[in-house]
Amino acid sequence: MTITITAFERSPDGGKGLARDTRVRWALEEVGQPYDVRLVSFRALKEPEHVALNPFGQIPTYEEGDLVLFETGSIVLHLAERHAGLFPSDANARARAISWMFAAVNSVEPPILELVNAKILEGDKPWTDERMPIVKDRVRSRLTQLSARLGSSEWLDGVFSAGDLLMVSVLLRLRASGLLDEFSNLAAYVARGEARPAYKRAFDAQLAINAR
Amino acid sequence: MTITITAFERSPDGGKGLARDTRVRWALEEVGQPYDVRLVSFRALKEPEHVALNPFGQIPTYEEGDLVLFETGSIVLHLAERHAGLFPSDANARARAISWMFAAVNSVEPPILELVNAKILEGDKPWTDERMPIVKDRVRSRLTQLSARLGSSEWLDGVFSAGDLLMVSVLLRLRASGLLDEFSNLAAYVARGEARPAYKRAFDAQLAINAR
Repeated sequence: MTITITAFERSPDGGKGLARDTRVRWALEEVGQPYDVRLVSFRALKEPEHVALNPFGQIPTYEEGDLVLFETGSIVLHLAERHAGLFPSDANARARAISWMFAAVNSVEPPILELVNAKILEGDKPWTDERMPIVKDRVRSRLTQLSARLGSSEWLDGVFSAGDLLMVSVLLRLRASGLLDEFSNLAAYVARGEARPAYKRAFDAQLAINAR
Repeated sequence: MTITITAFERSPDGGKGLARDTRVRWALEEVGQPYDVRLVSFRALKEPEHVALNPFGQIPTYEEGDLVLFETGSIVLHLAERHAGLFPSDANARARAISWMFAAVNSVEPPILELVNAKILEGDKPWTDERMPIVKDRVRSRLTQLSARLGSSEWLDGVFSAGDLLMVSVLLRLRASGLLDEFSNLAAYVARGEARPAYKRAFDAQLAINAR
């Protein structure tokens, strides 16, 4: 069955790969599944046709026959369960990979989202100069813990998994802030993710749209 | 095999059920699995023995034989996959329930965490009075979308699932703010979750510890 995902007609980041369709493209490339892309304008995101696919009016969505999914994490998990390449075969290792998936989106990404909001939505507010260091320290706190766990390992728990895919994707949002460079093993970890051929194909595919 | 979870020796909320062990207790009660609880002090959360179980020094953790899991979402998913009661049997409906699990922790909870941080970590800052309405509006934006999707349905997608368990748990954090009461169908949805016998048993179990 044809897989169709949605992506921004024009990504707010201009093609840096930070829009969430890149995470799904990367997963599709890792498991070797072809896919179609339907581009959506900002205005169309809020229209009933798209809200029927994603109640929060976001991209990406995932359509495969009768199945409609939203939320990047669940789409990546769906692909990882059905195709080889994103989950280890051992059941316990697979359950631990899922712990890392949720850690990426629920323990590491929330303080990063706060930082993004502080810059983009509140950057013109009078409290920004004083508040930004506090927000950055909340991110640092998580990165310190993640860095300690990763140590000198290549990936978070043995072989590359969907957990690494989401964690690297979440950490990539920090590059512009400079925070990632404060943790050399995390910066190297992210670079290892970006060096994967599947990531490069995913990145190039979104760039081809946004560079037009 | 015996299941052992960790919980706060003394919860910061004094037993209101907002600590994340309640989510795991609720899932265990829904699927009818007995469990042991190991209580952890705030100081012990940061010690190597606990960080080995949860790299972010949080509760809950989940131990079952050789398997160690962290992140509430992954623990609930693990239980839902192995025992009847939290996932529909149809494969597509199950994938959609997982979309709602991720929606709860990655689309709805982040703005709620910002609100919690604004109150608890920044409540004494000079910007609080002016900033709080902005933070609340970000929560309202998500609630408006969720309320529109839920409509007059009992649960998010057919029968009660692990997606509802996490969504109700996330929304419960809003009760004190009054925001939940602005959306009558969401308030009723949360009340339906709390009325489930499994939730009540989970709530009472954590209260019994915190009321001591």
